[in-house]
Amino acid sequence: MINFKSYNPTRIIFGRDTYKKVGEEVQNYGKKVLMVYGGKSLKANGTYDEVVKSLEAAGIEFCELEGVKPNPRLSLVYEGIQLAREQKVDLILAVGGGSVIDTAKAVAAGMCYDGDVWDFYSTEKQPKLVMPVGVVLTIPAAGSESSDGSVITKEEGLLKRSCCTDLFFPKFAILDPQLCFTLPPHQISAGGCDILAHVMERYFVPDDHHDFSDRLCEAAMISLIENLPKVLENKKDYDAWAEIMWIGNIAHNGLLGRGKRDDWGSHDIEHQLSAHYDIAHGAGLAIIFPAWMKYVWKEKPEMMEQYALRVWHVSPEGKTQEEVVLEGIQKTEDFYHSIGLATRLSGVGIDDRDFAVMAKKAVMSGPLGNFKKLYAEDVKKIYEISL
Amino acid sequence: MINFKSYNPTRIIFGRDTYKKVGEEVQNYGKKVLMVYGGKSLKANGTYDEVVKSLEAAGIEFCELEGVKPNPRLSLVYEGIQLAREQKVDLILAVGGGSVIDTAKAVAAGMCYDGDVWDFYSTEKQPKLVMPVGVVLTIPAAGSESSDGSVITKEEGLLKRSCCTDLFFPKFAILDPQLCFTLPPHQISAGGCDILAHVMERYFVPDDHHDFSDRLCEAAMISLIENLPKVLENKKDYDAWAEIMWIGNIAHNGLLGRGKRDDWGSHDIEHQLSAHYDIAHGAGLAIIFPAWMKYVWKEKPEMMEQYALRVWHVSPEGKTQEEVVLEGIQKTEDFYHSIGLATRLSGVGIDDRDFAVMAKKAVMSGPLGNFKKLYAEDVKKIYEISL
Repeated sequence: MINFKSYNPTRIIFGRDTYKKVGEEVQNYGKKVLMVYGGKSLKANGTYDEVVKSLEAAGIEFCELEGVKPNPRLSLVYEGIQLAREQKVDLILAVGGGSVIDTAKAVAAGMCYDGDVWDFYSTEKQPKLVMPVGVVLTIPAAGSESSDGSVITKEEGLLKRSCCTDLFFPKFAILDPQLCFTLPPHQISAGGCDILAHVMERYFVPDDHHDFSDRLCEAAMISLIENLPKVLENKKDYDAWAEIMWIGNIAHNGLLGRGKRDDWGSHDIEHQLSAHYDIAHGAGLAIIFPAWMKYVWKEKPEMMEQYALRVWHVSPEGKTQEEVVLEGIQKTEDFYHSIGLATRLSGVGIDDRDFAVMAKKAVMSGPLGNFKKLYAEDVKKIYEISL
Repeated sequence: MINFKSYNPTRIIFGRDTYKKVGEEVQNYGKKVLMVYGGKSLKANGTYDEVVKSLEAAGIEFCELEGVKPNPRLSLVYEGIQLAREQKVDLILAVGGGSVIDTAKAVAAGMCYDGDVWDFYSTEKQPKLVMPVGVVLTIPAAGSESSDGSVITKEEGLLKRSCCTDLFFPKFAILDPQLCFTLPPHQISAGGCDILAHVMERYFVPDDHHDFSDRLCEAAMISLIENLPKVLENKKDYDAWAEIMWIGNIAHNGLLGRGKRDDWGSHDIEHQLSAHYDIAHGAGLAIIFPAWMKYVWKEKPEMMEQYALRVWHVSPEGKTQEEVVLEGIQKTEDFYHSIGLATRLSGVGIDDRDFAVMAKKAVMSGPLGNFKKLYAEDVKKIYEISL
């Protein structure tokens, strides 16, 4: 186990009808908020009205930044910063999933900074002061509701970049499983795939001696794999949604990666894909992750073998280690198929024309990953395997 | 899953040689500290000198409260409060295990309170302000280094009582597995048993739908059971100690009990034992827990069955549910024996003369536990089973 620091001060408020009391929570931070959200679905399913009702009941004034899209854009962040400054808000309230929360964090950082907020995403520069952020989570996936990270895409050049700082931990995050009842199936599956990837990036690591952490990761993976099909079958299965929402939170709050160098190669390789083709990040991961596994497994076959045995219960009887490993990868792909996700680029209509450009962009800040260091030619090969 | 809040702001600094930099951490909170510790062993193994060296190098003044004993006493807390006030310290630095940390927390609360600090332990009264507490952990067991609780014993009447408040989360906790290398075997085993109990109290719950949480608990139990014998075999096994120290922390930082009503019956029943006979809390738990399991398992046999199957890998082949459950309990006892702990009161020289008194004291504030509500007569029966 390598030395580490562990810190996560976000207050999680979890359970039935908790989002209807968001106003009371906001009161702890001030009287005026900028509410950031996507748009249509939030208004159609009644969540918007409930949040507004709760804010009003608590005497909270609010202004709105609407229109956040997946792979959230820098231009909207700029808009938000201007609005938040004009209105002198005390807190940025994200009502949505990862894209909305990441936008809120970027606005919160930009509001306190005289320069261009993109500095924090494109250089080593770190925010020194960030406005408080609160969250009402509507999609369990990105884990941004209690993470220290934010990912933003700059339209010019389609640059998808992240910023991590302790100041990005939201002050509070409200997780009500009921808010997941109206999610469309594809979003459920893509979100689940993102959660699984958050665990796997912390599971396939180059270091030794992380027995407990391995088992925590396996707990998350097994429970997710068991519960995701339940909500695809019955969208209003509260108990299964509660499991998924809690797993999605733990998967990315930092816990599962303590004491080892986690590997974000697959995430970074996917980021290029979703920036270039605007597909859902989770859907991209279902394609990239199996290809990555096939390309890197020989670096530490015993780790991939353990994954196959413990998570997928592959029987080792009469099989070589390679056969066990490949069966584990196959079962991962089978699972993605079973929840309606493609595991090949050809399945989502992407061909090889941009591979070289994306590979080059992916390693712009240096080689990727830790399980195996990946350079542009490695990334290109992984795109090729995923064709 | 029931509604819950989750919050833990303690900053964990984990790994090799981290305690040698405690001075730098303390600098974030002020210039003068009260250092609380046990005594002999800390000075004998060199930890005391290293901590002092680090404080001095960072320009931190300090005064000392020495002599904390297991089942920490209120009288020493009073002494600490007086000293901390006279010296106007900025932070209480606990260097030790649960008893030292709990004493530090009590001093930190008492220092900011005009009344008797025992109020917080004996009534519904809660602290409104608490001085910052920092920790250098030397014994993985109580989990107090990042918990919201403190347990103190009032000598008069041998009352062992706890106080829980968000203000009791230490500001930081330094966990260096090397500090465990000099622990005596009995303390290692008793500590391990305390950790296991912290998980089990959160595992055997009356609620339904906690798949993920169950698996997280199992991850902690299995990893602990695997690693504890390793350090009894080789006291300087850093990697195994790192696992145990990290498990001990997670076991009691709140995570494993989210979404369900945990059960502290066994802990409360044991508290009477260690208050009356001054045996180590963990050693008492090795006696009380199996007896508690035998008394309550029929409340929710499927939970005890799952424990036997998943944690102890009991084979269900050709066995009734009852046989599987009892085999799981037997394996728990066998494990305690294998690490040198008695599982009967007679094994530590305690007879039945105080059972009625202890049972009455245990339920002084109402019936115990959630898995099964326990009244005085139930507690007495559990003492009887454990004879």
